Amino acid sequence: MIAVLKPGATPEQTEHLINWLRRMDLQVHRSEMQNITVLGLIGDTAHVDPELLKNLEIVETVQRISEPFKQSNRKFHPNDTIVEIGNIRIGGGYFAMIAGPCSVESEEQIVGIARAVKESGADILRGGAFKPRTSPYAFQGMKGEGIRLLELAKQETGMPIITEIMNINDLPLYENVDVIQIGARNMQNFDLLKELGRTRIPVLLKRGLSNTLEELLMSAEYIMSEGNEQVILCERGIRTFETATRNTLDLSAVAALHHLSHLPVVVDPSHGTGKACLVPSMALAAAASGADGIMVEVHNDPGHALCDGAQSITPDQFLELNQKIQRVREAIL
Amino acid sequence: MIAVLKPGATPEQTEHLINWLRRMDLQVHRSEMQNITVLGLIGDTAHVDPELLKNLEIVETVQRISEPFKQSNRKFHPNDTIVEIGNIRIGGGYFAMIAGPCSVESEEQIVGIARAVKESGADILRGGAFKPRTSPYAFQGMKGEGIRLLELAKQETGMPIITEIMNINDLPLYENVDVIQIGARNMQNFDLLKELGRTRIPVLLKRGLSNTLEELLMSAEYIMSEGNEQVILCERGIRTFETATRNTLDLSAVAALHHLSHLPVVVDPSHGTGKACLVPSMALAAAASGADGIMVEVHNDPGHALCDGAQSITPDQFLELNQKIQRVREAIL
Amino acid sequence: MIAVLKPGATPEQTEHLINWLRRMDLQVHRSEMQNITVLGLIGDTAHVDPELLKNLEIVETVQRISEPFKQSNRKFHPNDTIVEIGNIRIGGGYFAMIAGPCSVESEEQIVGIARAVKESGADILRGGAFKPRTSPYAFQGMKGEGIRLLELAKQETGMPIITEIMNINDLPLYENVDVIQIGARNMQNFDLLKELGRTRIPVLLKRGLSNTLEELLMSAEYIMSEGNEQVILCERGIRTFETATRNTLDLSAVAALHHLSHLPVVVDPSHGTGKACLVPSMALAAAASGADGIMVEVHNDPGHALCDGAQSITPDQFLELNQKIQRVREAIL
Amino acid sequence: MIAVLKPGATPEQTEHLINWLRRMDLQVHRSEMQNITVLGLIGDTAHVDPELLKNLEIVETVQRISEPFKQSNRKFHPNDTIVEIGNIRIGGGYFAMIAGPCSVESEEQIVGIARAVKESGADILRGGAFKPRTSPYAFQGMKGEGIRLLELAKQETGMPIITEIMNINDLPLYENVDVIQIGARNMQNFDLLKELGRTRIPVLLKRGLSNTLEELLMSAEYIMSEGNEQVILCERGIRTFETATRNTLDLSAVAALHHLSHLPVVVDPSHGTGKACLVPSMALAAAASGADGIMVEVHNDPGHALCDGAQSITPDQFLELNQKIQRVREAIL
Repeated sequence: MIAVLKPGATPEQTEHLINWLRRMDLQVHRSEMQNITVLGLIGDTAHVDPELLKNLEIVETVQRISEPFKQSNRKFHPNDTIVEIGNIRIGGGYFAMIAGPCSVESEEQIVGIARAVKESGADILRGGAFKPRTSPYAFQGMKGEGIRLLELAKQETGMPIITEIMNINDLPLYENVDVIQIGARNMQNFDLLKELGRTRIPVLLKRGLSNTLEELLMSAEYIMSEGNEQVILCERGIRTFETATRNTLDLSAVAALHHLSHLPVVVDPSHGTGKACLVPSMALAAAASGADGIMVEVHNDPGHALCDGAQSITPDQFLELNQKIQRVREAIL
Repeated sequence: MIAVLKPGATPEQTEHLINWLRRMDLQVHRSEMQNITVLGLIGDTAHVDPELLKNLEIVETVQRISEPFKQSNRKFHPNDTIVEIGNIRIGGGYFAMIAGPCSVESEEQIVGIARAVKESGADILRGGAFKPRTSPYAFQGMKGEGIRLLELAKQETGMPIITEIMNINDLPLYENVDVIQIGARNMQNFDLLKELGRTRIPVLLKRGLSNTLEELLMSAEYIMSEGNEQVILCERGIRTFETATRNTLDLSAVAALHHLSHLPVVVDPSHGTGKACLVPSMALAAAASGADGIMVEVHNDPGHALCDGAQSITPDQFLELNQKIQRVREAIL
Repeated sequence: MIAVLKPGATPEQTEHLINWLRRMDLQVHRSEMQNITVLGLIGDTAHVDPELLKNLEIVETVQRISEPFKQSNRKFHPNDTIVEIGNIRIGGGYFAMIAGPCSVESEEQIVGIARAVKESGADILRGGAFKPRTSPYAFQGMKGEGIRLLELAKQETGMPIITEIMNINDLPLYENVDVIQIGARNMQNFDLLKELGRTRIPVLLKRGLSNTLEELLMSAEYIMSEGNEQVILCERGIRTFETATRNTLDLSAVAALHHLSHLPVVVDPSHGTGKACLVPSMALAAAASGADGIMVEVHNDPGHALCDGAQSITPDQFLELNQKIQRVREAIL
Repeated sequence: MIAVLKPGATPEQTEHLINWLRRMDLQVHRSEMQNITVLGLIGDTAHVDPELLKNLEIVETVQRISEPFKQSNRKFHPNDTIVEIGNIRIGGGYFAMIAGPCSVESEEQIVGIARAVKESGADILRGGAFKPRTSPYAFQGMKGEGIRLLELAKQETGMPIITEIMNINDLPLYENVDVIQIGARNMQNFDLLKELGRTRIPVLLKRGLSNTLEELLMSAEYIMSEGNEQVILCERGIRTFETATRNTLDLSAVAALHHLSHLPVVVDPSHGTGKACLVPSMALAAAASGADGIMVEVHNDPGHALCDGAQSITPDQFLELNQKIQRVREAIL
């Protein structure tokens, strides 16, 4: 971390600052450049808040050199992390197709879709049991019963299952879930992140609606620093002023995250666009951008889904998409 | 709710849709305007997802007429809600100054600041015990011990206390807390909202970094629909592309929320700007915009605060600010 | 356009509004749905400002049914527009690679790069002569001399050239330019748009940093309504809170624009990301999303470019990218 | 400017970089801090593009120390600039009320409103003659005739007039205009800025919809560096995801600009909110935040204004607002 002092800083103030920094176990290298004093802070700067430092009366600017995320940082772990989910792998060249309905609605529905998406090439079954809804008056999901039905669909098809958690206290219900999803709204629910960090269940961590990539990686860090290294990052669209799409899917996040981190990156074009007609194009674009997987909503009857039907595609569309994605992945090798 | 059908909708499709809507306990009025069919949906449309409706193949557009929030809606409760906190009131013409440090750091610190802000005119003491931090490596607050120290400061000064909750399971620790704060990152932590809705402790609900006012009101609805009507809304800045301030404080939210809702609205210019030098101007602007209270960080030693010192003002600045705010409030009557 | 009136509207007010709308040459269909009056406005509503209508005291909501753009609207022109630039075509299945330096710097530089990118498969040469720079103290381009050098490079290589215009009065300088670019900052410089609408030179219209797709199409409409139908739309990134990339490239814009409009859509991943290391991934993603062309900065010496070198790739990288793009385009057929 | 090199930089690369920087007339101070090399660049760094520097293979980070704006910078001109418009002053403690209709529509209208707002305390008359409209099919203003009518209203009332320019070639029409407005969409129309810089007519420069404060000041710099120092900055709302208001009025911009610059800052709550009902609150908040003036739309018949009627207040509301603003200004002294 580099701190540049203001021209007017007195020697006493400078000395006082340097002593304070040293008490934080940092080595401080001082350099005078004409009327500017530059301090180089060496050591574990991850716990130093640059905002705080900037506030000090005599400090002009502060610049981090090393990123504040460690465990998810590619600099320290150059090799891609491969997350294993049953016999499915994500990352390091392995690509997974995650598909299923927005919400679990009934046994018939979830088992039916599970079979359909498996036939169409899906690797993992998704489906919401606990649903985070903006309105308390909207359908909140089948909850525990929804997880039971997902487990049934897993038995019937052999596909691993992924579903979202919203409440720490529900964790016992997820015992047979293969990947636990942290939704966008909970990306910075730090207690939930830590709790999942103490399990060994793979976590799919969705980027919050207005969170930066650095913040996403810091949230991954909450999970990893508790010991669970099985983290999959998920880009699902950020909130902007654009109204033609529900969110703005930020595909540059895929390449940027791959530069910064060794963790696999999955893209959710269904929530990212909010429109079924845009899902196939964006799924192909995600694959071309280097994503390690796609998570897409598939429904056997989009018109009547209890929620988010507007962004679901049919099994037939999914099959065709899947074939094209394989070709795109070969094309970019 | 008004739904406009596409010109190509067949009579069968239209009939099918109308029947489906009627099964949702809605009255459906149908009107033909040249080649356009317009459906007026009357009844409890709060549980109807407009996105879902828009998705139906034959639907062109959907427009809500009534807002989806009920309990917080001024239309149904024209009178301002006044939240009572000990002998302090917020809303309906009552204005409260909430002040204190970002974090509770020690008995000496919190009691010292409590006395200082009380003398300078503060009504309620704020201080973070559980701190939501982007980084797992940063100071996470004194937790339970911090709440104990806040209670001590309350005993010493007689001021009610407000502090943030992050985890449902910590609720028993907040027994003697006068106002529980939901932070921006937890604005859509729906389980936490519902749990607080089951208490009768006043809740200060902060707007999320990229949440709309409607979403803020829907989150208030989560609390109120469980029975707790003591909700204070808080504008604390939204995330934009601007870099001169940490966030962009949206003061039009104050007037807009007062139009939409009967709940009191408080402004936090400390988090909203992230810079101590901008806090007084924005606090005055907030008062002029009609806010029912200001929540501001005050620190006896801004340069050495463990977190967010950059945005804290001194007790002397707070005293001067307080006096100006009183004058501004008289000026706008 | 559908207008819903407030429950309290009196018959006189309603009558007055209907008469006012009829004077705007609109047919007004009126429908009563319980206590709600719905007006259907039929006719040329493109010149009606929905905001104005919403303001009327008795109006609750207004909803457009038909988009306000006509000439660029796919509904009225289902077939893709193909823009012809010399013997190069863009749109309707034709894909073009546009490449070159950010700025024209010297004869040696531009002719050198032109030859290099032509060999690597570029179809059109790009290069800035007039440079819109945030700072008046920064290099503003070689201006007229820069255009002359581009013409020289065109003679040497046979490649059509594209370059940006900033000032109506410079139009005579662009006589031999094959495509005139409107930069993001000038997307709503309406006089410039109209002036180019009066020429028959193809225009590449870049989306503004915070403009919606509808606004982009309305700007295209400014050009087209003056008679010039040779418009190419260009997505080049929007401004968000994210800092890991210079802008957020919105690739869903490609598919969304193709749904809304018949005009070709080109993507500029160089400005869209601001980082050379992200350009290839995003160019491939753009191709996979269905873009009709890619505009990319190529420099023979990225480290020393006078501007925007940070986002330029080398001719070798461009050659490799070009080959992959061809394969991706085949993969998505 | 401080540049931090990557750990792997070879001595040759470092030497090469330092020589290149010295050829740009910069003094380069080099400092080794353990394995990190820090370069301090002294001299006129305003023309150095930090993005370019960052791109160099061996550079880790670059940090500006001095702001890139000079003429508008408070550091070099500590005293507030006071812009004189006839006998009206703005800045340095002088406050101006600018009022009038969105568009000039007829002699009767503009003279009528001019008289009404003058009586209600307005200092300067505003009114659009050339209107930047998103749609080519919308009313584009009365153009030259509109300016003539504004001049007439000026003669009738003695009030100075302010109106927007969109096209350099229209400048001769503005000979008798007292303040020329640059609209948000033209904030980075650099040729227009430069041209106005060559006049001595005061310029009101509106912030673009997604522009940062630094960019606003750089645009002021375009005007000032050509010799025209009579620049008034105007905050008029930025574009965000919020839909309850048309834009998000960023009042922290007022205080932040006053810290950074000596130029006066005016706020436009009409465009900033887009809703007449929010205008008074936000005008008061703007005054409390320290603004040097308010620009507000006033219409004698809001319901029938040809454009932007939705955000206009009546002369009576303006009178009341004016009185409150005076009181707020006294309150914050």
